[in-house]
Amino acid sequence: MTQPIIRVAIAGYGNLGSGAQAAINQNPDMTLVGIFSRRDPASVTLIDNSVPVYAMDDIAQYKDEIDVLILCGGSKSDLPEQGPKLAALFNIVDSFDTHAKIPEYFESLDAPAKQAGKIALLSVGWDPGLFSINRLYGEAILPVGETYTFWGKGLSQGHSDAVRRVVGVKSGVQYTLPLESAMAKVRSGERPILSTREKHTRECYVVLEAGADEDTVRTAIVNMPDYFADYDTTVHFIDQQTFERDHSKMPHGGFVMRSGSSGTQTDTNHQALEFSLKLESNPQFTASVLVAYARAAYKMNKAGETGAKTVFDVAPGLLSPKTPAQLRKELL
Amino acid sequence: MTQPIIRVAIAGYGNLGSGAQAAINQNPDMTLVGIFSRRDPASVTLIDNSVPVYAMDDIAQYKDEIDVLILCGGSKSDLPEQGPKLAALFNIVDSFDTHAKIPEYFESLDAPAKQAGKIALLSVGWDPGLFSINRLYGEAILPVGETYTFWGKGLSQGHSDAVRRVVGVKSGVQYTLPLESAMAKVRSGERPILSTREKHTRECYVVLEAGADEDTVRTAIVNMPDYFADYDTTVHFIDQQTFERDHSKMPHGGFVMRSGSSGTQTDTNHQALEFSLKLESNPQFTASVLVAYARAAYKMNKAGETGAKTVFDVAPGLLSPKTPAQLRKELL
Repeated sequence: MTQPIIRVAIAGYGNLGSGAQAAINQNPDMTLVGIFSRRDPASVTLIDNSVPVYAMDDIAQYKDEIDVLILCGGSKSDLPEQGPKLAALFNIVDSFDTHAKIPEYFESLDAPAKQAGKIALLSVGWDPGLFSINRLYGEAILPVGETYTFWGKGLSQGHSDAVRRVVGVKSGVQYTLPLESAMAKVRSGERPILSTREKHTRECYVVLEAGADEDTVRTAIVNMPDYFADYDTTVHFIDQQTFERDHSKMPHGGFVMRSGSSGTQTDTNHQALEFSLKLESNPQFTASVLVAYARAAYKMNKAGETGAKTVFDVAPGLLSPKTPAQLRKELL
Repeated sequence: MTQPIIRVAIAGYGNLGSGAQAAINQNPDMTLVGIFSRRDPASVTLIDNSVPVYAMDDIAQYKDEIDVLILCGGSKSDLPEQGPKLAALFNIVDSFDTHAKIPEYFESLDAPAKQAGKIALLSVGWDPGLFSINRLYGEAILPVGETYTFWGKGLSQGHSDAVRRVVGVKSGVQYTLPLESAMAKVRSGERPILSTREKHTRECYVVLEAGADEDTVRTAIVNMPDYFADYDTTVHFIDQQTFERDHSKMPHGGFVMRSGSSGTQTDTNHQALEFSLKLESNPQFTASVLVAYARAAYKMNKAGETGAKTVFDVAPGLLSPKTPAQLRKELL
């Protein structure tokens, strides 16, 4: 290998952090320097023990040993607090996914990153992330048209929590499913106007407490305001063993569709783009996207770029370990 | 509009050139300065007469009036000859699609473009182009996995010509179709090894000359070496009226799939990306992609970049007329 090895570290070690460790192991041009955690380092169990765990409070000491830091904390409280501080020390990549707060979060990273001469690449993942890129390609290439995003089949954490709060539910999960009939309508080119609830159905798998009544629990779930009442909701009752066997993963995915027209009034043609993901593990896939963008952040910073960036600012070639000449030869 | 209007011109006016004119009309941040043709300008009929047609030989005179020139000639002889000359005068965008010759063509544009301080953006369209980008995203994000490209349903010009050369054929077209069973196998995650012929079938629509025999013509087509003998080929016989009504468009499309794995040996998860296009008009769509990338070429050159570039070098945000802040707010 003639290229330098990229030295990466991970801040935060939940499902996303362990996924990032696994993804780095798949990329021979990177080396994982260590994991930083707010927990007692001795208490953190890694997927493999090939790297040290350090206390988050000591992270500034490793300033010169890390090329890119991948932030694997949550968007609600971790990233807004950690992001601006860490952007002043490292090139960072994160998966901030509170769509409405992205402009504000972007600003909070931009100044410290510029000041430090670093790149802060925010909101990387699949939505925001790959889905956003496909929404952009769709409308830039076919300006006359409509864009549709469908989510699922995917495990929804918030809705699963709501199911588990119903009296009589021992274990429960909720999946959001894209509505096939709505997708078919979009694919036909008729460009319907569809609300989120007209595009999705909800499916729950529930294990009952001993003595609980199916009809009572089903009625409580499907009529729950905000969460289920406005959706077509199905409840399946299963035993605990089936639950553990079939519903312990965190699958997700979805579809971005652009339905557009090209040509003239007398020669109009329907043109359709569709991007979809089918993920057996949502956190592992998000982590894989983060790791590819960590490579891009490293290259952009090497090229002299600084400040807050999003996936819209990253040329596709920067994600690959291959050289531009190799990419032109092998993938174009 | 606070942004300057981008002044675009088109060199070459066949299906692709007229598609580019239609696409520019859909983009209010651009204005079409004119069409350049090697034919007698008076003989060129445009989709609308809002712009002048000039002789290609006079193009250098318009050097200061054109921000980006879209080259709409063919890859076989037009672009290799025109590209290097025009790259010395203008920012150019083209759809050079002879995959094997891309590295060589890239080099032929790079020096004149750099010398002139211009951008030469080559091999823009959907394959090469959007499909290439999706192949790159797939392998960069999921390095452990396989990438598959399926083409169709699409009109193949070369195979249609071959059908029309068969004795007894009055009119004929050939469509390449992706094989559903092969796509299902890929989507299942089993990562089969598939040759191009194992992924596609061929379908022909033929109008017979008076007195020609169906069986003779069918046998001649399905046994034709190189073109059809190795494929599952179906021949449909139709009348001239049906042919003209149903087979006068140039549809195309296809699928790029990445089937990969994330995680560890004890927690492996299947992850799948899929990008697809369903195009009623292949040339109009390719032209729409060229026009969006013309905007990017303009912005890159304004930012001081020069030389030959491909879609791998273009950050997604550059394709859009929206500002980076708008994109973050509306599309991320």
